[in-house]
Amino acid sequence: MSNDVYVVGVDMIKFGRFPDRSVPDLGAEAALMALDDAGLAIKDMQALYCGNLYQANAMVGQRILQQIGQTGIPVVNCANACATGATAFREAWMAIKAEVYDLVLAVGVEQMGKGLLGGGGGGSGIPKEGLLGGGTMPTVFAEAGMEHARKYGTTFEQFAKVSVKNHHHSTLNPKAMYQIETPLPEVMNAEMISYPNTKLMCSVNVDGSAAAVLCSERKARELGLMSRAVKVRASVLTSDPWQERDLVMPDVNTCTRLAAKEAYERAGLGPSDIDLVELHDCFATAEILHYENLGLCGDGEAGRFIDEGHAALGGRTPVNVSGGLLSKGHPLGATGIANIYEVTTHLRGEAGKRQVEGARIGMTHVIGLGSACGIHILERAG
Amino acid sequence: MSNDVYVVGVDMIKFGRFPDRSVPDLGAEAALMALDDAGLAIKDMQALYCGNLYQANAMVGQRILQQIGQTGIPVVNCANACATGATAFREAWMAIKAEVYDLVLAVGVEQMGKGLLGGGGGGSGIPKEGLLGGGTMPTVFAEAGMEHARKYGTTFEQFAKVSVKNHHHSTLNPKAMYQIETPLPEVMNAEMISYPNTKLMCSVNVDGSAAAVLCSERKARELGLMSRAVKVRASVLTSDPWQERDLVMPDVNTCTRLAAKEAYERAGLGPSDIDLVELHDCFATAEILHYENLGLCGDGEAGRFIDEGHAALGGRTPVNVSGGLLSKGHPLGATGIANIYEVTTHLRGEAGKRQVEGARIGMTHVIGLGSACGIHILERAG
Repeated sequence: MSNDVYVVGVDMIKFGRFPDRSVPDLGAEAALMALDDAGLAIKDMQALYCGNLYQANAMVGQRILQQIGQTGIPVVNCANACATGATAFREAWMAIKAEVYDLVLAVGVEQMGKGLLGGGGGGSGIPKEGLLGGGTMPTVFAEAGMEHARKYGTTFEQFAKVSVKNHHHSTLNPKAMYQIETPLPEVMNAEMISYPNTKLMCSVNVDGSAAAVLCSERKARELGLMSRAVKVRASVLTSDPWQERDLVMPDVNTCTRLAAKEAYERAGLGPSDIDLVELHDCFATAEILHYENLGLCGDGEAGRFIDEGHAALGGRTPVNVSGGLLSKGHPLGATGIANIYEVTTHLRGEAGKRQVEGARIGMTHVIGLGSACGIHILERAG
Repeated sequence: MSNDVYVVGVDMIKFGRFPDRSVPDLGAEAALMALDDAGLAIKDMQALYCGNLYQANAMVGQRILQQIGQTGIPVVNCANACATGATAFREAWMAIKAEVYDLVLAVGVEQMGKGLLGGGGGGSGIPKEGLLGGGTMPTVFAEAGMEHARKYGTTFEQFAKVSVKNHHHSTLNPKAMYQIETPLPEVMNAEMISYPNTKLMCSVNVDGSAAAVLCSERKARELGLMSRAVKVRASVLTSDPWQERDLVMPDVNTCTRLAAKEAYERAGLGPSDIDLVELHDCFATAEILHYENLGLCGDGEAGRFIDEGHAALGGRTPVNVSGGLLSKGHPLGATGIANIYEVTTHLRGEAGKRQVEGARIGMTHVIGLGSACGIHILERAG
C-alpha cells in the first residue's frame, strides 16, 4: 500500500478574542474537536505536532497534551511566523509519510495581543535585519500593492473588492470572527491604514485554534475512515532564494511562486484543476498578488479576475470562501490548519451555505514573513 | 534500497561565551563546518531544520540561511526545551525517512544569558504550571538525587565522582568549554548550589552551536560518502505519560525509560551493545539516574557503576567522553546535535586522545523539562 497521508478529522474553534483563556486551553479545545470529528481519542494518537508562534519556546504542545490526555507520545513544537500552523501540519504529514506513525495530531493555536496588529506575548520576535526592510506589515503590503498598480493599472476599487467579497463569504461561515456585509463604499471609506489598504482591508487580529488528525492509508482503511477522508496530494514549504527573486516582496511573491510550482508538480495538477483556494489575504493587496502568484490567472490579470467575480463563491475558482484572514481572522499559528479545515469541509461536501459545489480538489496557502511559504493540495478521497 | 538515514557531515564550534555575536551567526558557523566535513555545499541541501529555544519565534533558521546561502529551501524552526537540538535532528531524519528529501541540514544553536543558569532573551518561557512543581532546575534535580540516595544509599561522594570523571574527559576534548581537572575534594568543597550538587556538579552555562548533514542511503552511495558515514539506527522522542510514571521526576526518569525501551526495540539492540553514551548530565545527580534509566546498569547499581569506573573512558560503557554538559557546556538548542557530533566522531575513529577504542555503536540522550526525551542510536557504516 502507498504511504499516502489522509486528513481524517479536522476542526477549529470560532475565532474571537479570549484574553482570559490560556494558549494550551485554546489549543486543547480544537484538538478535542478534531478528535471527535475523526471519531478517535487522544489514546489513538502516536505523536503531536504543535504550531504556536508567540509562545514558541514554552512547550505549548506538551501543555495541550496535559489537558487532553497525557499519554507520553512525542511532541514537537514548530514555529515559522505566519506559516507556523502549516509547518506543524506538514511535519505531521512527514511523520506518517516516513511510516514512523499511522495517526498524528496537528494543532495550531495563537493568542494575539490587543490592537490592530496584535503582537502577542513579548512581540513577534522577528528581527528587522533584512526581513521587512525597516517597514511595518501594513506598509510593506501597501507598497507591494502599489507596485502591482504601477505595473498593471490595478485600482483602489479592485483591491477594495477583495474585502467586500471575503466579508460577504464570512456571513456564511459561523466560525468566522465577523458575519457582516461590508459594501464597497464602506470598505473604501474606512480609516486608511496604508494606501491602498483601509482598515477593512487588513486581516482581523483574533485568538483562535484549529486541529487536524492525519492518518496513513492503511490505518484509515482499517478504521473505516475513508468515506470522509481527504488525501494530501502535495505538501510544500519554501523560503525565498537570493537569486531570481522579486525585488518588492521576495518572501511573499517569489516564495509563493516557487511553492506553487512545486506543489502543482508534486500533485501532477495545474491551476485549472483547483476547485477552491484558501490563500493568505493578510491584506487585500496580498490576495490580488496571490491570484497571479498561484497561477489562478495570468500576470497582470488579477484586477479583472476580481472584477469578473472569478474569485467569489460561484465563480471559476472561489478564493477564501471562509471569509479569509480579512474577516474570519488571523490567529497566526492557527491559520494554516484553519485553512485545512475549510478546504476539507468543502471536499467532504459539508460546508453548508458556503459549499463550493462539487469541489474535488482544493489548495491552502500561507506566507510567513521571514520567510516561509506553505502550500497544501488536498483531494476528496471518498 | 532502504530508506535508512546516515549522518555524512557533523561538527560543532568550541563552546564558550560569545555575547557580541548573534544567534544566526553562531548557527551559520557550525552549519558551514558540518558542510565542510561532508565535502558538500549549501546548494546541495534540500531542507534546513533549526533548533533554537530562546529565539524560537524569530526565524533563526531562515536567518542562518541568509548568511550561508539563501537558496530558497524549506526551513523549519523547532523548539523543545533542552531537547530542542535532538528534535531538529529528528525532524531532519524524518524528512529523509519519508523520501521527500535526500540531503538535509540540521542546526542547533543557543546564546544563553549570563549567570549560573542563563535564561536567554526573555527567560526560558517554560511556565510553572505542573512542570517544575514550583521548584527551580537545581532544586528538582537535587531532590531527584536525594530520592535515589534514600532508596539505594547513593553517597555525596558518588555523585561528585560524576563531575570528576566528566571534567577529566573534557581535558581531552578541545571543543569543550573547560579543559581542567577537578579532583574529588575540589568538587565536594565547591560552593553548594542545592545538596548534593555543588557548583562543579551543575552544567556549564555557555553559548554554542552544532550542525549535522543527514543523507539518504542512495545519495550517500552515489556521492561516495559511505566510508565516514554513520547510520541512524533509532530516533525516538517521548513525553511523560500520566500513568505509570515516576513520582519524583516523571519528565526525566519515566520519559527516559520509555524512550530507551523504544530505541532499543527499534534498533534491535540492548544496552550491552552500546559502546559509548552521551547522556543529559545537566546535574551530576541526573547522570547517576540515567545510568539506570538507560539500562547501563540495574536499578540501585548506579553508585557502584561510577565507583568501579564503568562510565569512564576505558570502562565498560564510557559516558560523556566529551566532558558532558558538566564541562563541555550546555547551550540548550545546540546540545542535542553536539551529542551527535561526539558519538559520530568516535564511530568514525576520529576522536583523538579521547577515542573509545573500537566503538561501533553509540547512543545520545537529552531531556527537556516540560517534557521531551530524545534518544538516538548511531552505528558505524563504513
